[in-house]
Amino acid sequence: MTGTPSVFAGLDARLPALRELYQDLHAHPELSFQEVRTAGIVARWLREQGWDVTEGVGGTGVVGVLRVSDGPVVLLRADMDGLPVLEATGLPYASTRTGVDADGNEVPVMHACGHDMHVTCLLGATALLAADRDAWRGTVVAVFQPAEEVSGAQAMIDDGFAERFPRPDVCLAQHVGPIPAGTAATRPGAVMSASDSFAVRLFGRGGHGSAPENTVDPVVMAAAVVMRLQTVVSREVGANQAAVVTVGSLHSGTKENIIPDTAEMKINIRSSDPAVRTRVLAAVERIVRAEALAADTPKEPEFTSLNSFPLTLNDPDATATAVAGLGSVLGKEQVWTLPQPIMGSEDFGAFGSAMGVPSVFWHFGGADPGLFPDPDPASLVGGGLPPGVAYNHSPQYAPLQDPTIELGVRALLGAAGQWLGIRTS
Amino acid sequence: MTGTPSVFAGLDARLPALRELYQDLHAHPELSFQEVRTAGIVARWLREQGWDVTEGVGGTGVVGVLRVSDGPVVLLRADMDGLPVLEATGLPYASTRTGVDADGNEVPVMHACGHDMHVTCLLGATALLAADRDAWRGTVVAVFQPAEEVSGAQAMIDDGFAERFPRPDVCLAQHVGPIPAGTAATRPGAVMSASDSFAVRLFGRGGHGSAPENTVDPVVMAAAVVMRLQTVVSREVGANQAAVVTVGSLHSGTKENIIPDTAEMKINIRSSDPAVRTRVLAAVERIVRAEALAADTPKEPEFTSLNSFPLTLNDPDATATAVAGLGSVLGKEQVWTLPQPIMGSEDFGAFGSAMGVPSVFWHFGGADPGLFPDPDPASLVGGGLPPGVAYNHSPQYAPLQDPTIELGVRALLGAAGQWLGIRTS
Amino acid sequence: MTGTPSVFAGLDARLPALRELYQDLHAHPELSFQEVRTAGIVARWLREQGWDVTEGVGGTGVVGVLRVSDGPVVLLRADMDGLPVLEATGLPYASTRTGVDADGNEVPVMHACGHDMHVTCLLGATALLAADRDAWRGTVVAVFQPAEEVSGAQAMIDDGFAERFPRPDVCLAQHVGPIPAGTAATRPGAVMSASDSFAVRLFGRGGHGSAPENTVDPVVMAAAVVMRLQTVVSREVGANQAAVVTVGSLHSGTKENIIPDTAEMKINIRSSDPAVRTRVLAAVERIVRAEALAADTPKEPEFTSLNSFPLTLNDPDATATAVAGLGSVLGKEQVWTLPQPIMGSEDFGAFGSAMGVPSVFWHFGGADPGLFPDPDPASLVGGGLPPGVAYNHSPQYAPLQDPTIELGVRALLGAAGQWLGIRTS
Amino acid sequence: MTGTPSVFAGLDARLPALRELYQDLHAHPELSFQEVRTAGIVARWLREQGWDVTEGVGGTGVVGVLRVSDGPVVLLRADMDGLPVLEATGLPYASTRTGVDADGNEVPVMHACGHDMHVTCLLGATALLAADRDAWRGTVVAVFQPAEEVSGAQAMIDDGFAERFPRPDVCLAQHVGPIPAGTAATRPGAVMSASDSFAVRLFGRGGHGSAPENTVDPVVMAAAVVMRLQTVVSREVGANQAAVVTVGSLHSGTKENIIPDTAEMKINIRSSDPAVRTRVLAAVERIVRAEALAADTPKEPEFTSLNSFPLTLNDPDATATAVAGLGSVLGKEQVWTLPQPIMGSEDFGAFGSAMGVPSVFWHFGGADPGLFPDPDPASLVGGGLPPGVAYNHSPQYAPLQDPTIELGVRALLGAAGQWLGIRTS
Repeated sequence: MTGTPSVFAGLDARLPALRELYQDLHAHPELSFQEVRTAGIVARWLREQGWDVTEGVGGTGVVGVLRVSDGPVVLLRADMDGLPVLEATGLPYASTRTGVDADGNEVPVMHACGHDMHVTCLLGATALLAADRDAWRGTVVAVFQPAEEVSGAQAMIDDGFAERFPRPDVCLAQHVGPIPAGTAATRPGAVMSASDSFAVRLFGRGGHGSAPENTVDPVVMAAAVVMRLQTVVSREVGANQAAVVTVGSLHSGTKENIIPDTAEMKINIRSSDPAVRTRVLAAVERIVRAEALAADTPKEPEFTSLNSFPLTLNDPDATATAVAGLGSVLGKEQVWTLPQPIMGSEDFGAFGSAMGVPSVFWHFGGADPGLFPDPDPASLVGGGLPPGVAYNHSPQYAPLQDPTIELGVRALLGAAGQWLGIRTS
Repeated sequence: MTGTPSVFAGLDARLPALRELYQDLHAHPELSFQEVRTAGIVARWLREQGWDVTEGVGGTGVVGVLRVSDGPVVLLRADMDGLPVLEATGLPYASTRTGVDADGNEVPVMHACGHDMHVTCLLGATALLAADRDAWRGTVVAVFQPAEEVSGAQAMIDDGFAERFPRPDVCLAQHVGPIPAGTAATRPGAVMSASDSFAVRLFGRGGHGSAPENTVDPVVMAAAVVMRLQTVVSREVGANQAAVVTVGSLHSGTKENIIPDTAEMKINIRSSDPAVRTRVLAAVERIVRAEALAADTPKEPEFTSLNSFPLTLNDPDATATAVAGLGSVLGKEQVWTLPQPIMGSEDFGAFGSAMGVPSVFWHFGGADPGLFPDPDPASLVGGGLPPGVAYNHSPQYAPLQDPTIELGVRALLGAAGQWLGIRTS
Repeated sequence: MTGTPSVFAGLDARLPALRELYQDLHAHPELSFQEVRTAGIVARWLREQGWDVTEGVGGTGVVGVLRVSDGPVVLLRADMDGLPVLEATGLPYASTRTGVDADGNEVPVMHACGHDMHVTCLLGATALLAADRDAWRGTVVAVFQPAEEVSGAQAMIDDGFAERFPRPDVCLAQHVGPIPAGTAATRPGAVMSASDSFAVRLFGRGGHGSAPENTVDPVVMAAAVVMRLQTVVSREVGANQAAVVTVGSLHSGTKENIIPDTAEMKINIRSSDPAVRTRVLAAVERIVRAEALAADTPKEPEFTSLNSFPLTLNDPDATATAVAGLGSVLGKEQVWTLPQPIMGSEDFGAFGSAMGVPSVFWHFGGADPGLFPDPDPASLVGGGLPPGVAYNHSPQYAPLQDPTIELGVRALLGAAGQWLGIRTS
Repeated sequence: MTGTPSVFAGLDARLPALRELYQDLHAHPELSFQEVRTAGIVARWLREQGWDVTEGVGGTGVVGVLRVSDGPVVLLRADMDGLPVLEATGLPYASTRTGVDADGNEVPVMHACGHDMHVTCLLGATALLAADRDAWRGTVVAVFQPAEEVSGAQAMIDDGFAERFPRPDVCLAQHVGPIPAGTAATRPGAVMSASDSFAVRLFGRGGHGSAPENTVDPVVMAAAVVMRLQTVVSREVGANQAAVVTVGSLHSGTKENIIPDTAEMKINIRSSDPAVRTRVLAAVERIVRAEALAADTPKEPEFTSLNSFPLTLNDPDATATAVAGLGSVLGKEQVWTLPQPIMGSEDFGAFGSAMGVPSVFWHFGGADPGLFPDPDPASLVGGGLPPGVAYNHSPQYAPLQDPTIELGVRALLGAAGQWLGIRTS
């Protein structure tokens, strides 16, 4: 493919609407599986463009199908959910919304992972594809997935996704991240890490804060667990192996002078190698159990799985094809090969796995290129970010609106165009 | 005083009503400064008995005054508040209520410290005193204090207590505890420890759980603080000095894969010696600050005082008098001298301090005597409890209804009788 | 007894020799069971005074017997050993000696616990008793015990002490400490704490410092044990219970880049109550084992008992007698009653226990009285020392030579005189 | 180069002598800078073969020069020192020797890093080169370096190495390791990590083990440091960044009941990226200082540098040349490209750096190939070793004598032959 795909002809004219859409989504984030407003906007937009729309797939998921001819079927996926983070971007369209989380607590909500950008870009692409149906062939399945943060892809699959929609030849998805706007980054094979999350309940024995000798203090037990868990990565994972053990949440007690009965932790484990994953999971459980023994726990700790994301694997051939397509729109040198898997995780791979179809997942830049004195794909896999660039999930995270929206639309169509044979002018 | 005080004549007849009152109070605990229902019951009861009643003293406090003659003025105080504990006593009248705590969270509420028993016994005593006004002389000021758990006595004092009510010659109060029903325990001098509580907010820098290197993890910071705080008592307090450092509450984060920005702790410190108190408070602050430095905190920890209880000091002469009175109703050998101050704290001393009046505070038993193979006052000051006996503030704590109500009434009147000259029959 | 015992007549004349003796002993400390030079000096001195001397009792122990008549038999005991401490007193007669400890290491040696003072005072008393045999009646058994720091009393008993020497009516011993010279302090019942010491060997699996994932790091395991052991006193011992858990020695590894195979710890536990002792010992073992599990140890930790001192119990009647004797020479108000047992331990009780004879143990002051603005027996049991006063076992510890030698001789004879009927002039 | 280099003709005949030499060296390891016996053997061997020998270079270093013609100059380097490890290989020629380390302690000594194999292979190569001088051209500089474990290369350079010996065109060195005998592994660019080691002295304040409140306990302080240091790698180093922080040695105290004055630690830090190195070094110092503050240290910790190894960088062109030479003797598929730098460190790079000459460093296998079900270069960089294979520096480490000696000689000559033009038959 050379030249400019004709479908891009209408992009400039649509940018004001896409910006408005993006700001509206950003200001109205919704927690996982609660994306009702977002799904409504998506469905309306798709219908207006003439797509065949199915709502309520796997809860709040929306699937649009547009068939212009026989030929290749390409699945394009965007995720829709926000996070329980208190936004601190200072943007005029910053979120001030709250939601009720799975534990029944009211929490702030923010699009701290850029899923609003994913939705915007895919809706932009669907509009261009619908507006110029002669420019390509085959079928596009546009998937707006709920609850990526908690494995919502599986909910769509469990809801009959494979049987209800055309079987794709390839599944494509992109994620915005803290690399310079205008770049993309991916790699064949493992591209995103495995992630295993579970809750741990530690059991102490409560009592008056002045008489610890009559209690088993779960706050101290939990603190000992947290400190000892640091040794998993520091001592049981080699320097050239990749793993992260994060205790993202720790809650125990209500009053200063009552020793509580229990402590609750939520632990997330990342790994990019199956043997390391096995060892780390075992070490975490071993440490939790042993530290409870050390505390003379009256009851064994309880482990509850929260979610589990496998390694996200890019099909090597499909990746080469997608990279060529990305290069055609972003410039070949702007498409980076990641040296290692990123430690973040994704449930996008669930679609390809469930249907036996190759997938490709790539990152695209949303950060101000002027902040990167020395742009380097390693920054995505752990090389550190330049000052002023925030990481996904932080209260400061937001991609630049421009040119990220435009380039995200182009990237999607550039990659998909390799299968859809999008005509160039 | 020998023989049975005549005021006790009516006690048997009133016990069914006192039991009903107790069970009702127990089933309807209210959090500190929210004792609206309890205060209403108290005020109605006092009025029915002919006491002069003032409501709303220091928030929800109630003061009853009964003057039968010139002569001694005795202040008797009961505290009214419950605790945010989920009751696990299995009693038929166990609390199933919740309340909204000072942080706006809905929490279970339980009379886990026996304040319902204090109210019941003092209401029993007020009824007997009112029913037999010839049997004694002087004035009784019955104080139903809110919020003992968070220094509610000070609120009553700040509300003009000293100016609005008769100045007492002595202030008396009793607390039910895990010693055998039928016993009482006290000591001259320091009887309850000092307690200092504060909240600590630790500042990290949030981010994605997979990239801790871009964050400062407040969960790890808090765990390090908790572990290091253990060294205050283990290394900086002598074996023959008494101090407790309890982190009763630790909260950080919401999701497993988001490293949060902050961690919140509530710390309670007990001590029974001013020099030890000074050292321990300094050590706790030093450790919190140093552990935050070790974590490379972006912001110094914030300390917020929650409450502060001084040493509760029993006037030696008044204590000897009260002990004699307690012995007259419980049996002399049933009134124990505590070898050391109890590590629990009280704000009762605030009344005496504010008015320059001697106070006496004692404990009375609420536990099944059959569970104590070897009754020992040391069990109250740290000697350990026999199996089956729960400590105040635990979800299992509840005094035996009988004979605790009856003996609690007798104890109050036995002690007060030494000043009021209650006639014996 | 009133007036001055006639045996004291010669004390002034002997002080120069006693000072010289003290300085010589101080400058030549010997480790436990290596007190060869000290024992030689003791034996020579006793023989010169006409005592019946037996050397080599329980290793390096020396026993002198002087019988002047039928009648009471009093055992007086002094301990002889120094400690592996590098002296930092700056005294002109400070030790610069080294010794070889039980592990074969060359270590500095210092009389950091004042045993040189004990020997000096007892030798002074033996001289006075020998010089004035008409002034008293009965028999004195002067015991110069080796290795108090490691339970050397038992070695003397195992060597047939009870069978080889006259059975005493009472056993007396004194210990110099950081209270004002001129005072003594003791109590009936428990006067010194129980002490249990053991070595722990932790097993890791060594390897290259760059590849911890192929090892089990015993340094981290040991650190986790030490940190978690702090929770025994902070959480499992009540504020009014007395216990200390000290890891006095921790050794692991040789080079920075080799992860070692093992770590070695020496742990000392003090307690003044049998139930607390049982709980603390169990907690320490539980924690060591659990922390080894947490570390995935290839081999269970090994525990080796080092020594064990029981509670030192003062016979109440004999204590009253001895206190009267001490008061007669020091002044009644200078003899303090300790409020609680001291956390230090002693093996002196082994003599009385082995022979079924009452014992009395007291402390006498060696510190400059001018440094104590507010002398208080609590300073010995944990109230903190004034600036400039060092505690036994510290590199700065040394009693004042004067008047400690003189007063120590007087205290010994004052107490013993109650049994020996020392004539007063 | 194809065919067998003629210099190998004599290898079979020399193997018995090389095995004897190897066993003798293995049984007689010497600590760093104490390689007197080893150096003597080396010098004698070289002289017997006709090399020009200089002894005492940089202490115990030996340099042999053999010039057969004009032409390329190749430096071949072997290191000679053993380690303070107690050998546990069970080999008939296992070391039972001890040495006196830099701190004056007697320690066991073992060739736990295979330097004896390095010396043996280089001596084998020197013999073959000397025996067949027509088979090659140019000059070989054979360097037998002392004290690789503590940067002994720098001592040779400081002793005028560059000025005293022919300037090489390339510097070559090899290291035996736990990969299958018959394989070699290297990579262009960073091949070995940076290593920074320092000693830390922590200051407490000693005293009696029963009175921790009068002390600052350095054992607890050190334990807190060790635990908190684990957070450097777990929280401050990204999963895809490589760093190791090892506390290889921790020593404090002598007796269980004396709280010591100080604790001594030796820390080793590995990193394969300069920015990560900077951050980790700063974090370690920050944590040590903050933990000392938390302990209320009377004196700031002291840091003493022990040694510092830079990244070992392989010249890309020279590496390609050397790899070709290794492939010609081991088989091309037996020469692996390492995916990442090894976390171990080397001072070999000092020669090339000092003289501005390209270097190549490679690993060669010493482990039983039968133990590797799935040989993988990742095992060297952190993929884990199969059961039965020990890592360098462990008490179990020893390369297989056969075929490692033979293959090590071949590898050296295969690589060097690319420059020396070794004739093949």
